[in-house]
Amino acid sequence: MLARVLAQLSEASAVELGPGDDCAVLRHEGDIVVTTDTMIEGPDFRLAWHDGFELGWKLAATNLSDVAAMGARPTALTVALAVPLDTPVHLLERIAEGLDAACRALAPGCGVVGGDLGRAPVVTAAVTALGDLEGRAPVLRSGARAGDVVAYAGELGLAGLGLSLLFAEGLASDGTASADAVPRLWAAHPEVIAAQLAPAPPIPLGIAAAQGGATAMMDVSDALSIDSERLARASDVQIGFSSALLEQGFGEQSGVVVPVEAMLHGGEDHGLLATFPADVALPAGFRPIGTVDPVTGFGPSAGRLSLDGKGFEARGWDPYTVQYPGSS
Amino acid sequence: MLARVLAQLSEASAVELGPGDDCAVLRHEGDIVVTTDTMIEGPDFRLAWHDGFELGWKLAATNLSDVAAMGARPTALTVALAVPLDTPVHLLERIAEGLDAACRALAPGCGVVGGDLGRAPVVTAAVTALGDLEGRAPVLRSGARAGDVVAYAGELGLAGLGLSLLFAEGLASDGTASADAVPRLWAAHPEVIAAQLAPAPPIPLGIAAAQGGATAMMDVSDALSIDSERLARASDVQIGFSSALLEQGFGEQSGVVVPVEAMLHGGEDHGLLATFPADVALPAGFRPIGTVDPVTGFGPSAGRLSLDGKGFEARGWDPYTVQYPGSS
Repeated sequence: MLARVLAQLSEASAVELGPGDDCAVLRHEGDIVVTTDTMIEGPDFRLAWHDGFELGWKLAATNLSDVAAMGARPTALTVALAVPLDTPVHLLERIAEGLDAACRALAPGCGVVGGDLGRAPVVTAAVTALGDLEGRAPVLRSGARAGDVVAYAGELGLAGLGLSLLFAEGLASDGTASADAVPRLWAAHPEVIAAQLAPAPPIPLGIAAAQGGATAMMDVSDALSIDSERLARASDVQIGFSSALLEQGFGEQSGVVVPVEAMLHGGEDHGLLATFPADVALPAGFRPIGTVDPVTGFGPSAGRLSLDGKGFEARGWDPYTVQYPGSS
Repeated sequence: MLARVLAQLSEASAVELGPGDDCAVLRHEGDIVVTTDTMIEGPDFRLAWHDGFELGWKLAATNLSDVAAMGARPTALTVALAVPLDTPVHLLERIAEGLDAACRALAPGCGVVGGDLGRAPVVTAAVTALGDLEGRAPVLRSGARAGDVVAYAGELGLAGLGLSLLFAEGLASDGTASADAVPRLWAAHPEVIAAQLAPAPPIPLGIAAAQGGATAMMDVSDALSIDSERLARASDVQIGFSSALLEQGFGEQSGVVVPVEAMLHGGEDHGLLATFPADVALPAGFRPIGTVDPVTGFGPSAGRLSLDGKGFEARGWDPYTVQYPGSS
């Protein structure tokens, strides 16, 4: 089974030894960045909606964006898959194809270098991504300074709209996820369904931001508001969003009208949130969405975010509090 | 919850940036080795038998041994844990303590640098380990040459005996794993229970073997016979075990009499199987157990293993074929 899965993979350019021994061996030029993320059938995805290819793609994309957010070049993924005994090999092959295709499309030169296959009650995938800083300093969450510009690159809010659409029209009468409506939804709303099921984060822009003077950067996974709050706390600043800038930069994406509410709280965007000194030109692909402000506090909530000068609470997608229909 | 878990961790010496950002950042001197392994409650462990500390320890130990088996120095682990919503935080803290303690005891300087916490129907842990080759060439499975000595370092067969004991005396009347007998089994048979629940592989001997001229090396996870067969196929050789050498080196370990059958087929030893040219002195800790032979074939089975000149079939622990009582 493992052999058929491995056959889907192309080689990563940093690889000196690929899968098959106790470890893979990689050549790196600079410091290494490493990140890991798990996706579990049920809370994190539903196979009724995700083809295996899309699942593999999303697994790669979400981890690659964490590497990009440090200003590093992704070099390798390891993938631990655990699946029920009755899982068709075809699903595993499609996951491998999706992993491989996402690496080739989003981070050429990066590939899957190792993995592990086991059994579990539901499809469980843990991906670890490595990246090479190539001599650059990592761009942390903690470097934003009052006066910096807040900028964002990638899709914003589309993935959340896609998830809402799937929950609105992709459930069976018993409330469980159903594949029936998925082809129709793909045909009618390809931008938001693709953003949710197979996101395409702007991975090379992580290096561009690092080279372009970014003072802080992170990938937006839970929601722009939640992750901005984290960046603001790590940097001990506030972030002031401008609805005019958000509208101007992201009000229409691929022909879809995206409300500011969806941009701020949609979640799973996997684009890059970064701050830059006010006097540098933003790298191509980044658009300004606000400013880094000194901490003044917004009343009793002590939040760090404002929109047009008015404080608001971060919120978004949280697997510990959101009970999706059809998940246990 | 994540904060309480991270509080258990000491810092790895290669770390330039620890947990809390999109990625951890590591400094490496030579090429990187990377490996990943998943353990799932049910097929891979039972919480009735494993304390969280032991589970964390075993997770670290099994991955560290893969790094050691390349001749590398372990530098960092990432840990993806997914658990049911009703999991007590204390269990996660104990897992983190065990991960940390195993790193400190078995591979000083290595530590957990990042992780991910999610929810799953059963406790699911995927660990990725990184290592630094420090300028050495990796020791592969494929380098054994006819005439080499086959040697082993670590415990051999004890872990399998421990698992047999747990299945014989650690089950409730309905066949599920029970914690009731575990304190008594720990008291009466600490060597085999410890070998099964919290193994202590000889991690530094991986570097010693690489420096001492090992031609091939791998960690024994499934069973000495199964993993030797893999090494023999990768190197296109046969391996001839000597029962006299096995008895001499491993017939009594920590006062426990270990039958050759248990050494060959027990599984989960996580010691180091290595081959050395006949004219070099084995590094301290390695004992000879056989020879590397040219391929002659052993009848229709086409196996690559012999014991005292007689061919035999590799077998051992396989989660896809062994139905443990009490697992689904």
